[in-house]
Amino acid sequence: MPLLKVKSAFFLLNISLFPSVSLFLRIGKHLKWTNIMLEELLAYNKKFVESKGYESYITNKYPDKKIAILSCMDTRLTALLPAALGIKNGDVKMIKNAGGVISHPFGSVIRSLLVAIFELGVKEIMVIAHSDCGACHMHSEEMIAKMKARGINPDYIDMMRFCGVDFKAWLDGFEDTEKSVKGTVDFIIHHPLIPSDVKVYGFIIDSTTGELERIV
Amino acid sequence: MPLLKVKSAFFLLNISLFPSVSLFLRIGKHLKWTNIMLEELLAYNKKFVESKGYESYITNKYPDKKIAILSCMDTRLTALLPAALGIKNGDVKMIKNAGGVISHPFGSVIRSLLVAIFELGVKEIMVIAHSDCGACHMHSEEMIAKMKARGINPDYIDMMRFCGVDFKAWLDGFEDTEKSVKGTVDFIIHHPLIPSDVKVYGFIIDSTTGELERIV
Repeated sequence: MPLLKVKSAFFLLNISLFPSVSLFLRIGKHLKWTNIMLEELLAYNKKFVESKGYESYITNKYPDKKIAILSCMDTRLTALLPAALGIKNGDVKMIKNAGGVISHPFGSVIRSLLVAIFELGVKEIMVIAHSDCGACHMHSEEMIAKMKARGINPDYIDMMRFCGVDFKAWLDGFEDTEKSVKGTVDFIIHHPLIPSDVKVYGFIIDSTTGELERIV
Repeated sequence: MPLLKVKSAFFLLNISLFPSVSLFLRIGKHLKWTNIMLEELLAYNKKFVESKGYESYITNKYPDKKIAILSCMDTRLTALLPAALGIKNGDVKMIKNAGGVISHPFGSVIRSLLVAIFELGVKEIMVIAHSDCGACHMHSEEMIAKMKARGINPDYIDMMRFCGVDFKAWLDGFEDTEKSVKGTVDFIIHHPLIPSDVKVYGFIIDSTTGELERIV
């Protein structure tokens, strides 16, 4: 097809960002150490396996409920969300990030949804934001100030801006949770690689009680 | 700073991809319907809240263990991973996608890690891939064939390629799980916005037994 033969500047420049990270490599040693918290966690894991604690969790990779959930990484939801929805191991595919948002039309969230739909039989998607989300009122300039205070080289930040990174679009919070959920649902529904028969719903979950409020 | 004043073609072209999605809007109605599975889930949720099932999960947004976990959306890990690591509600930030990978240096995973570190006090990151991962042996061309068979317009796929979308890089599996974990850990460590004092570890968890194997 003719389109495929065109070596467009768009192509060359859009893929330029990812490899360019190597230019920024910092000089710095990351010590390989194991702290007490990690030691405890690994010791717990050893006991869990030895006592066959896994037996009640055995399932396969196909989600029984044919549902994928896009939600927030928030620490209040780790156990509360599955518990509040009655979700067991094996029921759903769980995609999580800060705010339960989509940062890029060809990023890891859409990739995950495509895998869920085309490889694993998912037919429904639930976008579940939550009350009092930390990603709601974030400000990119405040976070950048924290980065600099922590020792991130300001020249790198300038260089990223020069290379096209829009920190405001990337790091600013969504301000209005309901609007964010609606926007995310709409984005998934209208993504040209998502089949039109996949159902997409939007909710806000209460971070304390686990109560779901239907938005879309 | 001089760098900021340059209106570079890089900038214009790298941000061109996101808004361009609107060009692809499909004609198609997404029916708003509620199926039995969702009805059941919502009914369960109502009972959960009424019976105050949430009381044992109450915590705040700051992760007690100061750990963020990047893992896979796999349905076998939803309950097994927290159980196998002894993770309770409130302990960690949980980031999940297909394969537990990073698709973009300025995408939702790195954004989530930055929020976790600079806004929520995370000091350690665990990358946890798993055995028999569905994202391991994926092939972009096979998935694109499934998309077309499901009714996705081939012209849209051609147009995306024209606009710079590298389906192979985006959708192909990582083939070697250990190598993938090492690559992801390395990518985080060397990302110029991640502070050098943040510790990053890599593991593979057994999808059946929950046993952790340390990779990095």
